[in-house]
Amino acid sequence: MFRFRNFLNRCGNRVSDCSPMASAAVEFRRLCRNKQHKTHTSGYAPGYAQVNLLVLPEQAAKDFRDLCARNPVPCPLIGITPVGNPHEIDNKRAISDPEFDICTDFPSYNIYENGKLVDSKYDIRDEWNSNSVGFLIGCSFSFEKALSDQGLPPRNFSLDKNVSMYQTTRMLDPAGIFYDVSYVVSMRPYKVENLEKVRNITREFRRTHGEPIDWGYGAVKRLGIKDLGNPEFGDKTDIREDEIPIFWACGVTPQIAANRCASRIKSKVIGHSPGCMLVLDLKDEEVSSLR
Amino acid sequence: MFRFRNFLNRCGNRVSDCSPMASAAVEFRRLCRNKQHKTHTSGYAPGYAQVNLLVLPEQAAKDFRDLCARNPVPCPLIGITPVGNPHEIDNKRAISDPEFDICTDFPSYNIYENGKLVDSKYDIRDEWNSNSVGFLIGCSFSFEKALSDQGLPPRNFSLDKNVSMYQTTRMLDPAGIFYDVSYVVSMRPYKVENLEKVRNITREFRRTHGEPIDWGYGAVKRLGIKDLGNPEFGDKTDIREDEIPIFWACGVTPQIAANRCASRIKSKVIGHSPGCMLVLDLKDEEVSSLR
Repeated sequence: MFRFRNFLNRCGNRVSDCSPMASAAVEFRRLCRNKQHKTHTSGYAPGYAQVNLLVLPEQAAKDFRDLCARNPVPCPLIGITPVGNPHEIDNKRAISDPEFDICTDFPSYNIYENGKLVDSKYDIRDEWNSNSVGFLIGCSFSFEKALSDQGLPPRNFSLDKNVSMYQTTRMLDPAGIFYDVSYVVSMRPYKVENLEKVRNITREFRRTHGEPIDWGYGAVKRLGIKDLGNPEFGDKTDIREDEIPIFWACGVTPQIAANRCASRIKSKVIGHSPGCMLVLDLKDEEVSSLR
Repeated sequence: MFRFRNFLNRCGNRVSDCSPMASAAVEFRRLCRNKQHKTHTSGYAPGYAQVNLLVLPEQAAKDFRDLCARNPVPCPLIGITPVGNPHEIDNKRAISDPEFDICTDFPSYNIYENGKLVDSKYDIRDEWNSNSVGFLIGCSFSFEKALSDQGLPPRNFSLDKNVSMYQTTRMLDPAGIFYDVSYVVSMRPYKVENLEKVRNITREFRRTHGEPIDWGYGAVKRLGIKDLGNPEFGDKTDIREDEIPIFWACGVTPQIAANRCASRIKSKVIGHSPGCMLVLDLKDEEVSSLR
């Protein structure tokens, strides 16, 4: 009864055609598809994992797959579409919905040409072609919830701000046309005495960046971060006197990689609009066990 | 007939009990097991893949597995023994030989305590215990042969010298007790015009370091290599005026990682003696298709 009422609450006000069989994920993707939801996805379809998008032309897809295989921490590949087919993901556990369309099921998309943002759209069916390959890439939303659940909410999570993200000088291991690319990291401050607990909690999220890649003020220099007070992406985060910055690999990395290598991709690149992710048919805690 | 004569030549002079059914790999491991072969393995059982060894206590094994999963380029994990069982490898394609014993089938072993070499042995059956886990890690011998076969023999291969290896400042993504560890790289010089061909050939060896991680004289600084003329491991390699250095991730990295983290492993660590590898039941060209 409780679950049924919850379902009505969740469903009744937001979408007219949702069937009693549909999961919150299926339901939320339908809202995106019908353009009833066109903004950020944080907090929606709670418990379901969310992922980043990159659409590349087939001729760049093999190298990008290699890039992900060689750099699983910044580029955790969750699933791929067949060439030219926007309705399927090779990893059936990630998306099992027959209505799925990678061109409509994100709330919003960014279109890049020669590494520059040229357009934003709610629907990319007119951009997708027989040569397109879609990549779904893990995101750290999953472990933020786990940290909160265990009494260690990230500051950005508590304050409802975007996490601070920095360009670093730590290089990815190159793959084909994808070379000369460096990590983007996200930063969350914690007390030193909580470092091991934070490492242990996030370690289990092996398919969504996992444990931190570095920590402490020494890491700022090691990672070649220019200014801790001025993140290149996201919001500024205050670090208290008894805290240290802790850095995780960030899913912005593959997007930056694609833009940085645009001259070698020789085609438009499409990503999700920042914060506007795809909701999977998979719970946060199931992502770690993928593959 | 030719193959049979070859078999007799190969077999007759070196081992008394080799059966006509035994592959060159099985045969060669038997020679090592019987201590009829106790030195380096380069050029032996040609065509069969060779791997590095690391033996760790069970309490460090999970973190080491994570280290390999997070850093597949420097730490390409090929197979693992069950805890305490030296006769099996989880990856049956790598080792399918019922006589296999990880404690005797390498020609020679190095024993480390607190990160220091304390002993070398031809047999580690008295060191192995119910808590031991053996890790087999890919090595670049495979792609050196491929480079030679395609007319681009590495200098060290042609001159029968050891490849030059360098400690770098490029950090691995940490995993549990394995943190503050950096890549070791191997270097092979090639003409600039051969760079793409060299990248393409070695890329296919995805389970044995794959394509180079950096190249050119700029890479020396980026990787934090102290002195190109004085490699930390292996032999010095001359670079001609029309050549550039090309750097690959190197399988010495996990060994260095274990020694660097010795205080947190709290137990002896065993590796193979340098150059004294294990021959697998798997051809070089089959390694790429593993898993």
